[in-house]
Amino acid sequence: MKITSLTNAKVKQWSKYKEKKYREIDKKFLIEGEHLLQEAHKEGLIECVISVEENTSWDMYEHYEITSDIMKKLSSSVSGSNIMALCHYSEQKETYGKKIIILDDVQDPGNLGTIIRSALSFGYDSIILSKGCADVYNEKVIRSTQGACFHIPVFRKDLQEVLTDFKQQGIAVYGTALKNAIDLQELKVKTPYAFVFGNEGQGVSQGILNRCDKLVKIEMETFESLNVAVAAGICMYTCNH
Amino acid sequence: MKITSLTNAKVKQWSKYKEKKYREIDKKFLIEGEHLLQEAHKEGLIECVISVEENTSWDMYEHYEITSDIMKKLSSSVSGSNIMALCHYSEQKETYGKKIIILDDVQDPGNLGTIIRSALSFGYDSIILSKGCADVYNEKVIRSTQGACFHIPVFRKDLQEVLTDFKQQGIAVYGTALKNAIDLQELKVKTPYAFVFGNEGQGVSQGILNRCDKLVKIEMETFESLNVAVAAGICMYTCNH
Repeated sequence: MKITSLTNAKVKQWSKYKEKKYREIDKKFLIEGEHLLQEAHKEGLIECVISVEENTSWDMYEHYEITSDIMKKLSSSVSGSNIMALCHYSEQKETYGKKIIILDDVQDPGNLGTIIRSALSFGYDSIILSKGCADVYNEKVIRSTQGACFHIPVFRKDLQEVLTDFKQQGIAVYGTALKNAIDLQELKVKTPYAFVFGNEGQGVSQGILNRCDKLVKIEMETFESLNVAVAAGICMYTCNH
Repeated sequence: MKITSLTNAKVKQWSKYKEKKYREIDKKFLIEGEHLLQEAHKEGLIECVISVEENTSWDMYEHYEITSDIMKKLSSSVSGSNIMALCHYSEQKETYGKKIIILDDVQDPGNLGTIIRSALSFGYDSIILSKGCADVYNEKVIRSTQGACFHIPVFRKDLQEVLTDFKQQGIAVYGTALKNAIDLQELKVKTPYAFVFGNEGQGVSQGILNRCDKLVKIEMETFESLNVAVAAGICMYTCNH
């Protein structure tokens, strides 16, 4: 089906999904670019495909051909896209697995996406976001995950309640901190465990640090400053070895 | 001195430094925010301070009070700044040190800045950028370094020439690759050494990989995809231990 009007009802509906509140009402979101479509397709999340030119490789889905003006309206990317898809949220079972990442108010979409990407690559089972984290269905988060977000369960929870559950279930909780912490090289992880990473400016909040079984510090030499996604990647990798 | 006109000659001059070509002509750049001013101050890079409100804590420098409209024109930050400074490039001696990071066309400013930040924190001595890397004086790069870029020498070079020099000087060169590579855990680094990281999409180019002494792969489980700044952080940290 061809759509040429910027005021077409479908176009209006789709463009609403650039905002979190509309994504949450309908549990739908937009993705951009061939690579993300392929990753979303593997998990059966695509509802329809939207492209500027005819594109027969996605014939298995309902397909809309649109103008480049409409694409500009729908796209969040600066460089622009040729193909997008409307997807629905994935249904997730309430199981966290044995290697869990907890994020305490990670606010930058790029950081959140990058951590999700690393978590999947390093074989972590799930990610739990505090209420103050960026939205996983934000276009920039999805792009930074490179599609990893479709393949690993991501939950949004009250972290204090989660930590109470984990205590009962015997899941060890490790947190990163600059003070009163052992060197990362000294940490011997015991599965099942969860690793907590914190906000870009403040780190892990004190209320969460207080409930960690062990606090860990990445050994640094001079500047003592790491991006949270880098810190998370180093901890995840090191705990695997 | 107070400036209230958007067309003031100094304002016009400063705003030019948002573009790389003008930065390179005058070897000057702008920084934003109290934290970056402090880091640039430590290295004596500040020429004058520009703020919306009176600010006596930077009295040691020539100071310009400007309107918030002018600040909007000068600032590259979405959330806006209250204070900026005009800085000059730092003079760098042509010494690379013993632990060197080489970046082959890392194009994303956030990635470049994040890698510089990690390199300083992990005690690396210098960073060598290929001609295709982002500009280190780009405002987003500087912001992502959190000021680390003022404290570590960053060079822009022809990488093939650099690798020829390194061969003669007996500096080992390690590169990251997905194929024909040993596990990172197997790598025993010998100082002096350089570690090469590559472009976000293509990785390290084949012409550079061919000249590496060893190729290294970060062990992953499923997704096999890492952000380059995360990969660089993991390699730098692991080589320190």
